[in-house]
Amino acid sequence: MSTDAVTMDKIVSLSKRRGFVFPSSEIYGGLGSSYDYGHYGVLLKDNVKARWLEAMVRERDDIVALDSSIILHPRVWEASGHVSGFSDPLVDCRTCKQRFRADHLADPEHQELRCGKRPSKRPGETPDCDLTEPRNFNLMFQTRVGAVEETGVDVYLRPETAQGIFINFKNVAQIARRKPPFGIAQVGKAFRNEITPGNFIFRTLEFEQMEMEFFVPPDEADEWYRYWVDARLQWHLRYGVRESHLRVRPHDADELSHYSSATSDIEYLFPIGWSELEGIANRGAFDLTQHTDASGTKLEWVDAGSGERFVPYVIEPALGVNRSMLTFMIDAYDEEIVGERERTVLRLHPQLAPVKAAILPLIGKDTGMVEKARALYEELRRHYSVEYDDNGAIGRRYRRQDEIGTPYGLTIDEQTLEDDTVTVRDRDSLAQERIPIGGARGRIGELLAADWKTPKSG
Amino acid sequence: MSTDAVTMDKIVSLSKRRGFVFPSSEIYGGLGSSYDYGHYGVLLKDNVKARWLEAMVRERDDIVALDSSIILHPRVWEASGHVSGFSDPLVDCRTCKQRFRADHLADPEHQELRCGKRPSKRPGETPDCDLTEPRNFNLMFQTRVGAVEETGVDVYLRPETAQGIFINFKNVAQIARRKPPFGIAQVGKAFRNEITPGNFIFRTLEFEQMEMEFFVPPDEADEWYRYWVDARLQWHLRYGVRESHLRVRPHDADELSHYSSATSDIEYLFPIGWSELEGIANRGAFDLTQHTDASGTKLEWVDAGSGERFVPYVIEPALGVNRSMLTFMIDAYDEEIVGERERTVLRLHPQLAPVKAAILPLIGKDTGMVEKARALYEELRRHYSVEYDDNGAIGRRYRRQDEIGTPYGLTIDEQTLEDDTVTVRDRDSLAQERIPIGGARGRIGELLAADWKTPKSG
Repeated sequence: MSTDAVTMDKIVSLSKRRGFVFPSSEIYGGLGSSYDYGHYGVLLKDNVKARWLEAMVRERDDIVALDSSIILHPRVWEASGHVSGFSDPLVDCRTCKQRFRADHLADPEHQELRCGKRPSKRPGETPDCDLTEPRNFNLMFQTRVGAVEETGVDVYLRPETAQGIFINFKNVAQIARRKPPFGIAQVGKAFRNEITPGNFIFRTLEFEQMEMEFFVPPDEADEWYRYWVDARLQWHLRYGVRESHLRVRPHDADELSHYSSATSDIEYLFPIGWSELEGIANRGAFDLTQHTDASGTKLEWVDAGSGERFVPYVIEPALGVNRSMLTFMIDAYDEEIVGERERTVLRLHPQLAPVKAAILPLIGKDTGMVEKARALYEELRRHYSVEYDDNGAIGRRYRRQDEIGTPYGLTIDEQTLEDDTVTVRDRDSLAQERIPIGGARGRIGELLAADWKTPKSG
Repeated sequence: MSTDAVTMDKIVSLSKRRGFVFPSSEIYGGLGSSYDYGHYGVLLKDNVKARWLEAMVRERDDIVALDSSIILHPRVWEASGHVSGFSDPLVDCRTCKQRFRADHLADPEHQELRCGKRPSKRPGETPDCDLTEPRNFNLMFQTRVGAVEETGVDVYLRPETAQGIFINFKNVAQIARRKPPFGIAQVGKAFRNEITPGNFIFRTLEFEQMEMEFFVPPDEADEWYRYWVDARLQWHLRYGVRESHLRVRPHDADELSHYSSATSDIEYLFPIGWSELEGIANRGAFDLTQHTDASGTKLEWVDAGSGERFVPYVIEPALGVNRSMLTFMIDAYDEEIVGERERTVLRLHPQLAPVKAAILPLIGKDTGMVEKARALYEELRRHYSVEYDDNGAIGRRYRRQDEIGTPYGLTIDEQTLEDDTVTVRDRDSLAQERIPIGGARGRIGELLAADWKTPKSG
């Protein structure tokens, strides 16, 4: 079948079945749009973050890492405009008491939510709610630091990691001895009290962001903006997302945030349609200027030699870890008939795959095979994320590894006992090669380092 | 000088100077006990987490990873006992209006806080406040999910990651095909609204935890408890913490939490005195039983074959990432006179060091040396976290690397231009060896993989 037949339900089901993602607090009936990540989910998510950090920090000389707090001084969010402007217009239905985003009411995908008191029909046929006028609700979660009311301080859970970067601009620039162009990258949790989260881990109240703020001389901003739009597109392609399922959509003038002179979304063709995967924005001097005005600390670049000074412009590529992980899973999902059996396979890039190789004795109860397989496993685990499995029929064990996206299967069989060779099974082509067991470590290393072509069609 | 002369102030100063840790929201006057991590802080912290996950998950067959949400269903915290019992007894001073933990008033280290209206003298000589009776204040941060008051749900920011593990016990055990003994490990943020945080990153409102819940048959609990106390002590030693600065302190009966039959702290000799670095607790069946009762979902282990069933006991080793990082920095901090110069050096274990090797052209303006050094840097960066630096006098560059704990310095000099050899400088012994430039990658790999003996005394 075509991978285009992938549905969100299939991804949700695979995620639960194999322990990538569980509904959070499930034994208590769940908490809307909240998810916990199981073993393979943690490994996949960590690989996504590692590949992003590698491309942003490790492979470059001009970007450093930062990890700022989730709870910042409340004035940060006044200066950034979030206290006054980070809100959704909401309407209530007087009949069913449900609440909706006013700007979403026209979307066909939200029609079926209305009206909760009446049986829902197809979108468009659903009876309308009796709606109130829109009211604005801030999306930031609020809490209080300090033990009691009279001495406490109202604070917010950050709705983005970016502001933690801007307020540290001066410290970082000085210590890292950097002059623009240079960037600061951060991976961390953010929280948004959205009224309509959903679509599995596409949009959740609590999520992880990967944001990089690239500070440039103002007259180079347009050029760097184009550079980052392209660089970020290339990153998704590098890790195997199909080109035909990606597109760059520049924002129209009326969509732009007030601080941005140009923004592009990298969109992916999700099962719910083309939607934002990553945003790249030219934020100009807005953020540094706002925090300079609000704090009295000049956030600008000064050349110690020439005395030249300017407020850098900022180019920001930003995406969600969870949404990126979802994209990789959706794009990698495939079902096919092999022989007479159907198999589900995640054609993940080997560098993203939670497990790089499975070590499998062909017959799980054969002491000789188990011994050889365990020895190989003990050697390989010191270098790669690998799994040993001797439990059940070999076909079932392969299918399990296919579903978690393990690119290579090393099988120890009768012949291994005779000549110390093992077979290496390729997840995608199902081709098998036989190599000396002593060469397994090197061969896996070669395969992981090799250029990888996505085996997906379409 | 002796490393025992290390003070918290010196660590704070080094952290700021070299970009490990900054006071958070500094341009807005800071937010009490909140810190942001700069480039080297991120790298060091990530290494601490990676070494913990390696020891917990990668090197074992019986522990899997999990990443649960910060905001869980509020009933989780009712069942766990946190809503009713996770509180501090606080007292107010009627004179100075300051607030204190009632159970801390007797500690000499808190004496100087009292009374804020009067000039503070030495501990013990300070005039007493006029104190109210103690009142209990819950340490959990509260916030509200949902856009408005009438439909919202009060929730908490998790004060520990452990509960997210317990409520996922059934999902994980089924999917991972595990039977006790097996464990679930998690690294993630937790939040505690403490009235007396402090001592730099020793205790902060927002911190990262590394917790592992090990589920065992009840009759094996004592044995596994002893096993984990020892295994965790060995981990700190493995990464270079001095044995003389570590001790295991079993809790007295009157210190034990109500759910625990045995708890030990691994304590470290911080500049503030012996204090908890890690806790290992035998939590018995308390947590799984509480969540079974509250949720109606049986959290127990059932053998599909024999029908045997039991509620596993839990052994929990738990420590803070930030406190562990602080411990490694304090323990690694040293000052010594070399020649006629004083140098500060972080004698971090190479596997924890943010940067593994610095590549330094002896003369930063020598085109030939720079070219060779850049080529070596480009090769090494594909394999290790390395830095290139040609900025300033070589002595200053060495001192900078010493302060961030870089174990190896590769220097390109006149002789390199003649015979393609480089010197490798050892951070601790200052010994230099000369090797062929083509062998640098292999040599660094050897050095990083070699057994490492802490060069610290005392």
